Amino acid sequence: MNAHAEAATALDDLLAGIDGAPHKREDPLAWLELAGLPRSDAELARLERRREALLAQRTPGPATPAERLAALRGRFDALGLDGFVVARGDEHLNEYVASGAERLAWISGFTGSAGAAVVTREAACLFVDGRYTLQAAEQTDAALWMRKHLIDEPPLAWVRTLPRGFRLGYDPRLHAQAWAEDAEAAMKAAGGTLVAVAANPVDAAWSDRPAAPISPVIVHPLEFAGRSAADKRRALAEGLAARGLDAAVLTQPDSIAWLLNIRGFDVPNTPLPLAFALAHADATVDLYIDARKFTAGIREHLGPEVRVHAPDAFATALEALGARAVSADPARSNAWVFQRLAAAGARIRREPDPLMLPKACKNAAELAGLRAAHVRDGVAITRLLAWLSRQRPGPALTELAVVEQAWRLRAEGARFHGLSFGTISAAGPHAALPHYRASQTSNRALADGEIYLIDSGAQYLDGTTDITRTTMIGAPSTEMRDRYTRVLKGHIALDRTVFPSGTSGAQLDVLARQFLWVAGLDYDHGTGHGVGMMLSVHEGPQRIAKGASSVALAPGMVLSDEPGYYKAGEYGIRIENLVVVREVAIPDAERPMLGFEALTLAPIERRLIEPGLLTPDERAWIDAYHARVHAEIGPHLDAEDRAWLEVATAAL
Amino acid sequence: MNAHAEAATALDDLLAGIDGAPHKREDPLAWLELAGLPRSDAELARLERRREALLAQRTPGPATPAERLAALRGRFDALGLDGFVVARGDEHLNEYVASGAERLAWISGFTGSAGAAVVTREAACLFVDGRYTLQAAEQTDAALWMRKHLIDEPPLAWVRTLPRGFRLGYDPRLHAQAWAEDAEAAMKAAGGTLVAVAANPVDAAWSDRPAAPISPVIVHPLEFAGRSAADKRRALAEGLAARGLDAAVLTQPDSIAWLLNIRGFDVPNTPLPLAFALAHADATVDLYIDARKFTAGIREHLGPEVRVHAPDAFATALEALGARAVSADPARSNAWVFQRLAAAGARIRREPDPLMLPKACKNAAELAGLRAAHVRDGVAITRLLAWLSRQRPGPALTELAVVEQAWRLRAEGARFHGLSFGTISAAGPHAALPHYRASQTSNRALADGEIYLIDSGAQYLDGTTDITRTTMIGAPSTEMRDRYTRVLKGHIALDRTVFPSGTSGAQLDVLARQFLWVAGLDYDHGTGHGVGMMLSVHEGPQRIAKGASSVALAPGMVLSDEPGYYKAGEYGIRIENLVVVREVAIPDAERPMLGFEALTLAPIERRLIEPGLLTPDERAWIDAYHARVHAEIGPHLDAEDRAWLEVATAAL
Repeated sequence: MNAHAEAATALDDLLAGIDGAPHKREDPLAWLELAGLPRSDAELARLERRREALLAQRTPGPATPAERLAALRGRFDALGLDGFVVARGDEHLNEYVASGAERLAWISGFTGSAGAAVVTREAACLFVDGRYTLQAAEQTDAALWMRKHLIDEPPLAWVRTLPRGFRLGYDPRLHAQAWAEDAEAAMKAAGGTLVAVAANPVDAAWSDRPAAPISPVIVHPLEFAGRSAADKRRALAEGLAARGLDAAVLTQPDSIAWLLNIRGFDVPNTPLPLAFALAHADATVDLYIDARKFTAGIREHLGPEVRVHAPDAFATALEALGARAVSADPARSNAWVFQRLAAAGARIRREPDPLMLPKACKNAAELAGLRAAHVRDGVAITRLLAWLSRQRPGPALTELAVVEQAWRLRAEGARFHGLSFGTISAAGPHAALPHYRASQTSNRALADGEIYLIDSGAQYLDGTTDITRTTMIGAPSTEMRDRYTRVLKGHIALDRTVFPSGTSGAQLDVLARQFLWVAGLDYDHGTGHGVGMMLSVHEGPQRIAKGASSVALAPGMVLSDEPGYYKAGEYGIRIENLVVVREVAIPDAERPMLGFEALTLAPIERRLIEPGLLTPDERAWIDAYHARVHAEIGPHLDAEDRAWLEVATAAL
Repeated sequence: MNAHAEAATALDDLLAGIDGAPHKREDPLAWLELAGLPRSDAELARLERRREALLAQRTPGPATPAERLAALRGRFDALGLDGFVVARGDEHLNEYVASGAERLAWISGFTGSAGAAVVTREAACLFVDGRYTLQAAEQTDAALWMRKHLIDEPPLAWVRTLPRGFRLGYDPRLHAQAWAEDAEAAMKAAGGTLVAVAANPVDAAWSDRPAAPISPVIVHPLEFAGRSAADKRRALAEGLAARGLDAAVLTQPDSIAWLLNIRGFDVPNTPLPLAFALAHADATVDLYIDARKFTAGIREHLGPEVRVHAPDAFATALEALGARAVSADPARSNAWVFQRLAAAGARIRREPDPLMLPKACKNAAELAGLRAAHVRDGVAITRLLAWLSRQRPGPALTELAVVEQAWRLRAEGARFHGLSFGTISAAGPHAALPHYRASQTSNRALADGEIYLIDSGAQYLDGTTDITRTTMIGAPSTEMRDRYTRVLKGHIALDRTVFPSGTSGAQLDVLARQFLWVAGLDYDHGTGHGVGMMLSVHEGPQRIAKGASSVALAPGMVLSDEPGYYKAGEYGIRIENLVVVREVAIPDAERPMLGFEALTLAPIERRLIEPGLLTPDERAWIDAYHARVHAEIGPHLDAEDRAWLEVATAAL
């Protein structure tokens, strides 16, 4: 079988897992290229026909919300359960999941990115946080579903109201070990029992559940990774040995992708292959992955020290660890892993995933890639803003139209591999919803006198981007300018700060909020999240937010700087750049000091700035940033866009 | 027996516990007054004679460090131990302890306020933090004692090096339950066993250990408390009932003192009576206290709903709780309490001491008292600074001479009841040690061209104070002025900030550090601690510091605002005011906002300020603060001091 035929077979295998990777339908041509197939309309048509034929062969499962609930409840007796917790998440506790892991959406109809449900014989209760209250109400049937606040009255508080003797089931593959421990304590306190099920009753009820995705796995080239997988494996092994560990259980696919310098496309937005791994103190790795996903050359790339096994072999491998000393992350690995290890008598060391910190600190090659990717992304966003300035508001200039234009402009750039998250394209009052997603029904035209906010990001082979710009259609009000300038001052204060080595993002969060606070205002989200390298756009362990994260910021960490302001029903503002932590030399400094350097390059809307509210230092920051954008982005633009950039980046 | 004779007997009882309250020897006259005895020299002399007679009767115990270690080790066999952890702390985990609880000092010679020791048959290891490294080296014999860093290599990390099968003893009365759980896990991981001893082998070896103190207990008048004890008991009981609890175990004497509106003098600096209590859901309280400490009227004040028992009855009372639902604080109550409860089968609810939050939020009467106390304290400190400005540097003008003068001036004010902590009086390079304590050997003269720093506080019946001022003998260097002004800018930024309700002190900490950071500088202590009301000068749960404290600041909470800068071997700077959290009205605010109001009133050294580094807003803050000091303190001064204040508080 030649490479083309092999790829075509892999593609058919993939289609057998219908919907296994829904995001690829957004850009099937790109997918063809990744799979090594000719990027042709004919091949695309073949693909669609095959997909439809396979879909037609399947037996449809229960279709209405009531039928689905009944099908789930119908399995309680056999399992000895009085109720069941439905998680939103997969075996890896990923943020983005394959469609076959969308169990919460299947049972409840709710499609938000966070939530949980508890279904008992009599009741069904959906838990969502504040940003999803409205959406949950629209998507679920109030006759079938109670709705509660995920934070104020979480499932583990609510279970206290269950009758004594209640047996609550959960799937230990879909919950973190830490959650399972809390849940066990909560059920015990309520006089009930938490029961780990061997087979998920939702899966059993969901007869047409999509199979696991088998998207192509590609090599992440050394040019962008900056460090060989062998070197990373050796460093990990040294760390394990130094801590007296025989092995580490790796369950986060982005950690595995980083360690082995591979990427994949099994879930939307984050280019990772679903896989588990065991890393040993002798620098070998056991990798549990569906090898049908491998593109040509992957086995050679992995080398003999990485042993490839079928995903099913992971359970036995955990049990075969016997009495060895093994680290596992109770916050980020599922309870099933801990239960397997405990059953085998392993000495479990509860430690954070040992790859999070090395992965977070980007090396010189990764930073070079990130900078190059940000120039390309900055060109696309600058072209988008210039294009937008030339549009006349009207019914065709909608939120979704801008999403499409942004995609087009990004796709024209080199090394583009799709979006890093669903674009937030929000006109007028929609901008007041920090996590708004435009749909065909919500799609709003950009109107004169309204703010327009776009928060988007892309995956390039050499870097991940995430940028928010807030712009104005027509003339802003005085209040809009005041609020925008306060947000901008916060953005600048965080960007400019220098801080001693050892400082956490939690300590810096207030810098971005202080100018809003003085006016009695605030925003209800974090100020910054970590960002991966052609990996997750939300990557730990670092964060800039209130709360308990005490992880010190370290050179090479990439974070967003994105304060905002939201006036419900009217407008919203957010200004987001990605920044990288770097060492800062200060004359006579007594301590090693760190600071940020902006990676993102695109004009910040000048028409929304009230210059009178800025200090001379803040004006100088804006002018210097705009001069840099002009110098780095300008040369890549055509004359028309360059003329627009000239004005957009003029000194204040 | 008349009241005088009764008090004299109580005094003799007290002396029988020689050294039980060493701080009272600093001001025995004040003690005589509290005990209801004539404040006469004759009575004082009688006291001293009686004390010496009692001292002479005692059998001295082992005196040298080697003898003490040997005496401790000599008890290991009988207890089946291979080693023992010596804690610094008493049964209540108090910050300040009676001298009979100074076990760490007795065994090791180290007298610092924090530390621990592990003594095995072969080794003795003392653990102290960075501020005590020097002191520990001076006070302990290197031939007998290893010294380790309490934070970098704590006892629970070090025990991992002990041989398998090791049996490590500890006194569960002297360690928090949370510590005991960690220690148990650490010993298990090391293949050893943690053993709770019934009788402390240090106490057994320390044959002349001072008995428990029996200092007078006094009523804390309603005028200053602002809320009756009955009302507090009812509110506590309602909270217990609402949470389904039958009782709360109270082990923090300051919580008990606050609840019952009583004060005492069993330990230095914090005016609390040593006691345990059980608070019940029916609003009654069982109080475990040596009733010989009661001054006239205490029983009437407590009333019939507070049942008084001997301290020994506490153990049986815990066991008598049977299967009831009881809250106890694993971080602040000792392991012995938890063991007693568990043995009795109680349903233990692990919760923070339920009185910490209500105690921390001062009511209107408490705030009025605090404001009045701060005027008196401000008068004393202003007089001290004016006096200091008139002294000529020379051998007589020493750190200890200023301590004495500060005491004298404070003692002249009304309602003075001693210091709230040992005064930090630091000249020149001593000021670079944030926790410096002047002694007869270290006592340094204030010298021309040097900084002098004094951090001190007092207990008044109507409030607790804590203030630091840094002043200059002669002319400051440019660097000193730069550093001082950066510290001042941080102090002002924190004082002026407004923040939404729900904000923790951890979020605000950076505001006080930012101007040092810009110059590559920082300080290694928290920025603010909570302060009690005629109680502990370090009172939780609120704090302003980096790290994980997520307790929201709430109206009425008192905190210090005390950034600093320390240049080892040269000088140190700290500017400290106490501030109170209050609601702040902002026009068009969208959220309830809070801010601070300074309580402390004394001039801030103008000669160390570099006005060119201040913004107009910062200058306005200084001028407004000084105008307030002038208006509130000036009227209480004589002409000479008033003239000095005029200059010290002149506009910049």
